[in-house]
Amino acid sequence: MNNPTEEELTPFCPYYKRASEIIGGRWTAAIIRVLLSGVTHFSEIAAAIPGLSDRLLSQRLKELEAEGIVTRTVVPHTPVCIEYALSEKGRDLASVVRALSEWAARWVEHD
Amino acid sequence: MNNPTEEELTPFCPYYKRASEIIGGRWTAAIIRVLLSGVTHFSEIAAAIPGLSDRLLSQRLKELEAEGIVTRTVVPHTPVCIEYALSEKGRDLASVVRALSEWAARWVEHD
Repeated sequence: MNNPTEEELTPFCPYYKRASEIIGGRWTAAIIRVLLSGVTHFSEIAAAIPGLSDRLLSQRLKELEAEGIVTRTVVPHTPVCIEYALSEKGRDLASVVRALSEWAARWVEHD
Repeated sequence: MNNPTEEELTPFCPYYKRASEIIGGRWTAAIIRVLLSGVTHFSEIAAAIPGLSDRLLSQRLKELEAEGIVTRTVVPHTPVCIEYALSEKGRDLASVVRALSEWAARWVEHD
Protein backbone atom coordinates (compact mmCIF):
# COMPACT_ATOMS: atom_id res chain seq x y z
CA MET A 1 0.00 0.00 0.00
CA ASN A 2 1.29 3.45 -0.86
CA ASN A 3 0.56 5.93 1.89
CA PRO A 4 0.42 9.50 0.71
CA THR A 5 2.74 11.70 2.74
CA GLU A 6 2.18 15.25 3.83
CA GLU A 7 4.40 16.42 0.99
CA GLU A 8 2.56 14.53 -1.73
CA LEU A 9 -1.05 15.11 -0.77
CA THR A 10 -2.44 18.60 -0.39
CA PRO A 11 -5.22 18.85 2.21
CA PHE A 12 -7.82 19.88 -0.33
CA CYS A 13 -8.19 19.27 -4.03
CA PRO A 14 -11.34 20.23 -5.94
CA TYR A 15 -10.80 17.47 -8.54
CA TYR A 16 -10.56 14.88 -5.80
CA LYS A 17 -13.70 16.26 -4.15
CA ARG A 18 -15.55 16.12 -7.47
CA ALA A 19 -14.35 12.54 -8.02
CA SER A 20 -15.54 11.54 -4.55
CA GLU A 21 -18.96 13.00 -5.33
CA ILE A 22 -19.20 11.06 -8.60
CA ILE A 23 -18.18 7.76 -7.00
CA GLY A 24 -19.92 8.48 -3.70
CA GLY A 25 -23.46 8.51 -5.07
CA ARG A 26 -25.60 5.87 -3.41
CA TRP A 27 -25.18 2.54 -5.32
CA THR A 28 -22.73 4.09 -7.79
CA ALA A 29 -19.66 2.28 -6.48
CA ALA A 30 -21.60 -1.00 -6.46
CA ILE A 31 -22.73 -0.50 -10.08
CA ILE A 32 -19.16 0.24 -11.22
CA ARG A 33 -17.91 -2.91 -9.50
CA VAL A 34 -20.59 -5.01 -11.22
CA LEU A 35 -19.73 -3.49 -14.62
CA LEU A 36 -16.03 -4.20 -13.96
CA SER A 37 -16.94 -7.85 -13.45
CA GLY A 38 -18.15 -7.94 -17.06
CA VAL A 39 -21.92 -7.77 -16.68
CA THR A 40 -23.52 -5.78 -19.54
CA HIS A 41 -27.32 -6.02 -19.46
CA PHE A 42 -29.65 -3.94 -17.34
CA SER A 43 -31.49 -6.94 -15.92
CA GLU A 44 -28.21 -8.66 -15.00
CA ILE A 45 -26.85 -5.53 -13.29
CA ALA A 46 -30.11 -5.24 -11.36
CA ALA A 47 -30.00 -8.92 -10.40
CA ALA A 48 -26.41 -8.57 -9.19
CA ILE A 49 -27.22 -5.78 -6.72
CA PRO A 50 -29.78 -6.81 -4.08
CA GLY A 51 -31.95 -3.93 -2.94
CA LEU A 52 -31.33 -1.64 -5.92
CA SER A 53 -34.58 -0.70 -7.68
CA ASP A 54 -34.81 -0.57 -11.47
CA ARG A 55 -35.73 3.11 -11.24
CA LEU A 56 -32.61 4.02 -9.29
CA LEU A 57 -30.38 1.78 -11.43
CA SER A 58 -31.69 3.53 -14.53
CA GLN A 59 -31.03 6.95 -12.97
CA ARG A 60 -27.51 6.02 -11.88
CA LEU A 61 -26.63 4.58 -15.30
CA LYS A 62 -27.80 7.83 -16.94
CA GLU A 63 -25.65 9.86 -14.54
CA LEU A 64 -22.62 7.66 -15.18
CA GLU A 65 -23.21 7.95 -18.93
CA ALA A 66 -23.35 11.75 -18.58
CA GLU A 67 -20.03 11.62 -16.69
CA GLY A 68 -18.45 9.62 -19.50
CA ILE A 69 -17.91 6.64 -17.19
CA VAL A 70 -20.48 4.29 -18.73
CA THR A 71 -21.25 3.69 -22.41
CA ARG A 72 -24.67 2.60 -23.63
CA THR A 73 -24.77 0.69 -26.90
CA VAL A 74 -27.92 -0.25 -28.76
CA VAL A 75 -27.33 -3.62 -30.41
CA PRO A 76 -29.64 -4.02 -33.45
CA HIS A 77 -30.93 -7.44 -32.51
CA THR A 78 -34.56 -8.41 -32.67
CA PRO A 79 -35.63 -7.48 -30.09
CA VAL A 80 -33.27 -4.52 -29.71
CA CYS A 81 -30.73 -5.15 -27.00
CA ILE A 82 -28.93 -2.52 -24.92
CA GLU A 83 -25.47 -3.12 -23.57
CA TYR A 84 -23.83 -1.11 -20.80
CA ALA A 85 -20.09 -1.05 -20.37
CA LEU A 86 -17.39 1.03 -18.73
CA SER A 87 -15.54 3.58 -20.87
CA GLU A 88 -11.77 3.94 -20.53
CA LYS A 89 -12.46 6.56 -17.83
CA GLY A 90 -14.73 4.06 -16.09
CA ARG A 91 -12.35 1.09 -16.37
CA ASP A 92 -9.67 3.30 -14.86
CA LEU A 93 -11.74 3.31 -11.65
CA ALA A 94 -10.64 -0.30 -11.11
CA SER A 95 -7.86 0.89 -8.80
CA VAL A 96 -10.39 2.77 -6.65
CA VAL A 97 -12.75 -0.22 -6.55
CA ARG A 98 -9.85 -2.49 -5.61
CA ALA A 99 -8.56 -0.19 -2.85
CA LEU A 100 -12.05 0.16 -1.39
CA SER A 101 -12.67 -3.61 -1.65
CA GLU A 102 -9.43 -4.35 0.15
CA TRP A 103 -10.19 -1.82 2.88
CA ALA A 104 -13.69 -3.31 3.25
CA ALA A 105 -12.26 -6.83 3.54
CA ARG A 106 -9.83 -5.67 6.24
CA TRP A 107 -12.20 -3.54 8.27
CA VAL A 108 -15.89 -3.78 7.48
CA GLU A 109 -16.30 -7.53 7.99
CA HIS A 110 -14.73 -7.34 11.42
CA ASP A 111 -17.33 -4.94 12.80
CA MET B 1 -2.38 -0.22 -11.47
CA ASN B 2 -3.85 -3.57 -10.52
CA ASN B 3 -7.00 -4.29 -12.45
CA PRO B 4 -9.31 -6.72 -10.75
CA THR B 5 -10.19 -9.61 -13.01
CA GLU B 6 -13.49 -11.40 -13.26
CA GLU B 7 -12.09 -14.22 -11.13
CA GLU B 8 -10.91 -11.99 -8.30
CA LEU B 9 -13.80 -9.57 -7.99
CA THR B 10 -17.32 -10.82 -7.39
CA PRO B 11 -20.00 -8.57 -8.88
CA PHE B 12 -21.48 -7.72 -5.53
CA CYS B 13 -20.03 -7.61 -2.04
CA PRO B 14 -22.00 -6.24 0.93
CA TYR B 15 -18.80 -5.17 2.76
CA TYR B 16 -17.66 -3.20 -0.26
CA LYS B 17 -21.10 -1.59 -0.55
CA ARG B 18 -21.00 -0.65 3.13
CA ALA B 19 -17.50 0.79 2.70
CA SER B 20 -18.63 2.84 -0.29
CA GLU B 21 -21.49 4.24 1.78
CA ILE B 22 -19.15 5.22 4.62
CA ILE B 23 -16.66 6.92 2.29
CA GLY B 24 -19.31 8.20 -0.11
CA GLY B 25 -21.00 10.56 2.33
CA ARG B 26 -20.91 14.14 1.11
CA TRP B 27 -17.60 15.75 2.23
CA THR B 28 -16.44 12.57 3.97
CA ALA B 29 -13.71 11.73 1.46
CA ALA B 30 -12.50 15.35 1.59
CA ILE B 31 -12.35 15.29 5.40
CA ILE B 32 -10.37 12.02 5.42
CA ARG B 33 -7.89 13.49 2.92
CA VAL B 34 -7.40 16.58 5.09
CA LEU B 35 -6.87 14.43 8.21
CA LEU B 36 -4.35 12.30 6.27
CA SER B 37 -2.41 15.47 5.55
CA GLY B 38 -1.87 15.88 9.30
CA VAL B 39 -4.40 18.57 10.22
CA THR B 40 -5.86 17.99 13.70
CA HIS B 41 -7.99 20.93 14.85
CA PHE B 42 -11.61 21.55 13.94
CA SER B 43 -10.99 25.11 12.77
CA GLU B 44 -8.07 24.00 10.58
CA ILE B 45 -10.09 21.18 9.01
CA ALA B 46 -12.91 23.65 8.32
CA ALA B 47 -10.47 26.17 6.83
CA ALA B 48 -8.95 23.50 4.56
CA ILE B 49 -12.29 22.60 2.96
CA PRO B 50 -13.95 25.55 1.20
CA GLY B 51 -17.74 25.36 1.26
CA LEU B 52 -18.05 22.96 4.19
CA SER B 53 -20.10 24.43 7.04
CA ASP B 54 -19.08 23.94 10.67
CA ARG B 55 -22.39 22.20 11.32
CA LEU B 56 -21.83 19.61 8.61
CA LEU B 57 -18.17 19.13 9.52
CA SER B 58 -19.20 18.47 13.12
CA GLN B 59 -21.81 15.94 11.96
CA ARG B 60 -19.37 14.15 9.64
CA LEU B 61 -16.68 13.97 12.33
CA LYS B 62 -19.21 12.41 14.74
CA GLU B 63 -20.20 9.84 12.09
CA LEU B 64 -16.55 9.02 11.36
CA GLU B 65 -15.88 8.68 15.10
CA ALA B 66 -18.86 6.30 15.38
CA GLU B 67 -17.39 4.25 12.51
CA GLY B 68 -14.05 4.02 14.32
CA ILE B 69 -12.32 5.96 11.54
CA VAL B 70 -11.64 9.17 13.46
CA THR B 71 -10.46 9.57 17.05
CA ARG B 72 -11.31 12.61 19.16
CA THR B 73 -8.91 13.48 21.94
CA VAL B 74 -9.48 16.13 24.58
CA VAL B 75 -6.13 17.71 25.42
CA PRO B 76 -6.23 19.19 28.93
CA HIS B 77 -4.82 22.56 27.98
CA THR B 78 -6.24 25.83 29.19
CA PRO B 79 -8.43 26.38 27.27
CA VAL B 80 -9.28 22.74 26.58
CA CYS B 81 -8.19 21.71 23.11
CA ILE B 82 -9.73 18.95 20.98
CA GLU B 83 -7.64 17.03 18.49
CA TYR B 84 -9.03 14.91 15.68
CA ALA B 85 -6.97 12.21 14.05
CA LEU B 86 -7.42 9.08 11.96
CA SER B 87 -7.46 5.72 13.74
CA GLU B 88 -5.58 2.77 12.22
CA LYS B 89 -8.79 1.94 10.32
CA GLY B 90 -8.90 5.53 9.07
CA ARG B 91 -5.22 5.74 8.09
CA ASP B 92 -5.71 2.52 6.15
CA LEU B 93 -8.02 4.50 3.84
CA ALA B 94 -4.90 6.19 2.44
CA SER B 95 -4.86 3.72 -0.46
CA VAL B 96 -8.46 4.63 -1.35
CA VAL B 97 -7.72 8.36 -1.12
CA ARG B 98 -4.62 7.89 -3.28
CA ALA B 99 -6.45 5.83 -5.94
CA LEU B 100 -9.27 8.36 -6.09
CA SER B 101 -6.81 11.29 -6.21
CA GLU B 102 -4.92 9.70 -9.08
CA TRP B 103 -8.11 8.98 -11.00
CA ALA B 104 -9.26 12.56 -10.40
CA ALA B 105 -5.93 13.92 -11.68
CA ARG B 106 -6.21 11.78 -14.81
CA TRP B 107 -9.85 12.40 -15.60
CA VAL B 108 -11.64 15.14 -13.69
CA GLU B 109 -9.32 18.01 -14.56
CA HIS B 110 -9.67 17.32 -18.25
CA ASP B 111 -13.45 17.81 -18.24
